[in-house]
Amino acid sequence: MRILVLGGDGYLGWPTAMHLTANGHEVAVADNYLRRQICREENVDPLFETPNLNRRSELWKKFSGFDIRVFIGDLTQWDFVEEIFKKFTPDCIVHYAEQPAAPYSMLNRRAATLTLQNNLMVTANVIFAVREFCPDAHIVKLGTMGEYGTPNIDIEEGWIDINHKGKKDTFLFPRQAGSLYHTTKIMDTDLLWFYVRMWNIRVTDLMQGPVYGLFTNENESDTRLLPFFNYDELFGTVINRFVVQAVAGFPLTVFGKGGQTRGYLNIKDTLNCVRLSAENPAEQGELRIFNQLTETFSVNELALRIQHVGDQMGIKVGIQSLENPRKEAENHYYNPKHTGLLELGLEPNYLTDDVLARLMEFVIKYKSKINQDQIYRNIKWG
Amino acid sequence: MRILVLGGDGYLGWPTAMHLTANGHEVAVADNYLRRQICREENVDPLFETPNLNRRSELWKKFSGFDIRVFIGDLTQWDFVEEIFKKFTPDCIVHYAEQPAAPYSMLNRRAATLTLQNNLMVTANVIFAVREFCPDAHIVKLGTMGEYGTPNIDIEEGWIDINHKGKKDTFLFPRQAGSLYHTTKIMDTDLLWFYVRMWNIRVTDLMQGPVYGLFTNENESDTRLLPFFNYDELFGTVINRFVVQAVAGFPLTVFGKGGQTRGYLNIKDTLNCVRLSAENPAEQGELRIFNQLTETFSVNELALRIQHVGDQMGIKVGIQSLENPRKEAENHYYNPKHTGLLELGLEPNYLTDDVLARLMEFVIKYKSKINQDQIYRNIKWG
Repeated sequence: MRILVLGGDGYLGWPTAMHLTANGHEVAVADNYLRRQICREENVDPLFETPNLNRRSELWKKFSGFDIRVFIGDLTQWDFVEEIFKKFTPDCIVHYAEQPAAPYSMLNRRAATLTLQNNLMVTANVIFAVREFCPDAHIVKLGTMGEYGTPNIDIEEGWIDINHKGKKDTFLFPRQAGSLYHTTKIMDTDLLWFYVRMWNIRVTDLMQGPVYGLFTNENESDTRLLPFFNYDELFGTVINRFVVQAVAGFPLTVFGKGGQTRGYLNIKDTLNCVRLSAENPAEQGELRIFNQLTETFSVNELALRIQHVGDQMGIKVGIQSLENPRKEAENHYYNPKHTGLLELGLEPNYLTDDVLARLMEFVIKYKSKINQDQIYRNIKWG
Repeated sequence: MRILVLGGDGYLGWPTAMHLTANGHEVAVADNYLRRQICREENVDPLFETPNLNRRSELWKKFSGFDIRVFIGDLTQWDFVEEIFKKFTPDCIVHYAEQPAAPYSMLNRRAATLTLQNNLMVTANVIFAVREFCPDAHIVKLGTMGEYGTPNIDIEEGWIDINHKGKKDTFLFPRQAGSLYHTTKIMDTDLLWFYVRMWNIRVTDLMQGPVYGLFTNENESDTRLLPFFNYDELFGTVINRFVVQAVAGFPLTVFGKGGQTRGYLNIKDTLNCVRLSAENPAEQGELRIFNQLTETFSVNELALRIQHVGDQMGIKVGIQSLENPRKEAENHYYNPKHTGLLELGLEPNYLTDDVLARLMEFVIKYKSKINQDQIYRNIKWG
């Protein structure tokens, strides 16, 4: 299958591209290095340097023999999108090409505007390109569990039947997000659902929880193949960030009561979920939605787990409770269904102590590189 | 009250501005003449010429003694927004500044992109400006009944209580629109609801049905004060368009079975609804939603009504059924609640034969100006 990975430079994009080639697919990646540019502007560095996409593609070719074709440019610009779709007309598009961070989207007006414009226009251009160049292609879109927020009812897999005053219909599950970034993902779903109905395109919208981890089957051979790994307040996901804080001796930053519960998954599972979705496409005219997570934890549970693993490794891990800079429920009901990907064949990699220990051991090698100033900046939502 | 009307050149913007001054408010308008520009590009003219905003403001001053301050520029550009909000810091913003036509948004990729970018970025800039310059100001946003689509359950006024598997919560009423234009209004609601929760802004989101008519209490004195009036397939709303078709001897164009039912209102009621909303603001941290319509009709009912009024006036009005170029339900349940604005004091102006006859008499004077080529162009959704 010819698969185009948009946002191929990101934390998940590059590992996905390698994984898809290793599983027999022909792959191209596109990126404009927006995440790297924003990290530079905001003075936050990843834990270690990551070569650019052309260099990583060369390295991967040397190690594996597989090709990954690289397109560098801005997917909000139609002429670039057109060029890619003409040169590499895909059977499937994996769309990660969005500004991916909630805290960045809440930083200031410019960051909010960039997030809105970038995320919406890339999604729109992907839809228009499919319509024009490959109407039978399948769009695998990365959404987020954050689209649902934390409702007081069970979270279904994308859709809900509503009985109301004696009549009945099926609707998108209600969406109500906790950041502008997450809200742009709601808008993406609005847009995809509209064009699925109008143009009969095929779409899988993956409601993904926060991802953690570094290691995949494809990147064990060379650290230069590891993903771009942020541990700062802006771009670091919580488990990755807490592991770095543990190593740095920076007490784990729990916001408010710490009862915030989310559905998490290992980066290996992200790759499998995306591959399984691509290999089992949605029907024409179908918006298929999967909740992409394998287990749920509260922030308090995560902090205690990492503290416990630290103890075992002889690292003393502190936990501090901070006034919550975000506006969110700190204790809430959370019961998301997530059976669709299991039915497609997903075999979850759970968050064991061993998984955490291995990540911690790796981070310890980079301890001297950790910049404590970027761990917590108190970016306020309100 | 100081009220800023965004999109002040449009079909509803200019009548609203006059109406608000006549009711004791201090008013400024902003517009970039985008609608006029698009009409020129697409080769569709309004039924009669409408002076520009500066000239209409001078005329209105002469007739009424009231001032309307005029700002000309593009509200997607922050520097223009900043300039207005510094020079005229409002208590209330009436936000009409969007590309307003479903068929135009479905015309081609460029039109879709313009609609998405314009509508989303203006709404975002309005929110950011309120946050920065007047956090207590009230945003009165024009949404559309089209956000809900045509669900098989009663349409509540913005919100719905859902009981699901023994638990309960309240959500935005499900939204599922029939055009890209309508989908951008869903996205506006997503965005407003997010920032209402984060920043405690005050918002009224008016889910308006298709508006008809020309005459208001403020524009009887001079035809140069009448609104910009489209009758083409791109920008003409259905009742206005059918009246012009009747006069032109162009059989009324019913798409498909003609059972498409919507909630309509007279332009006079739009002005009253917007004024009542402004004069009775939402609370801080409240997204208040009203369904802005006064009565519902199917397209078939409208065609028969206009045929009947034509008969009375000695005009033979044909009705033709065309293959539906849109993708929409042609026979469906439709039962929208609309009591909120009545409770605020709205006294509806219903669609009587007299109202239709008066509109038809006016259009007859411009019969020679009607360009039949722009009435039906078969703009396809699919």
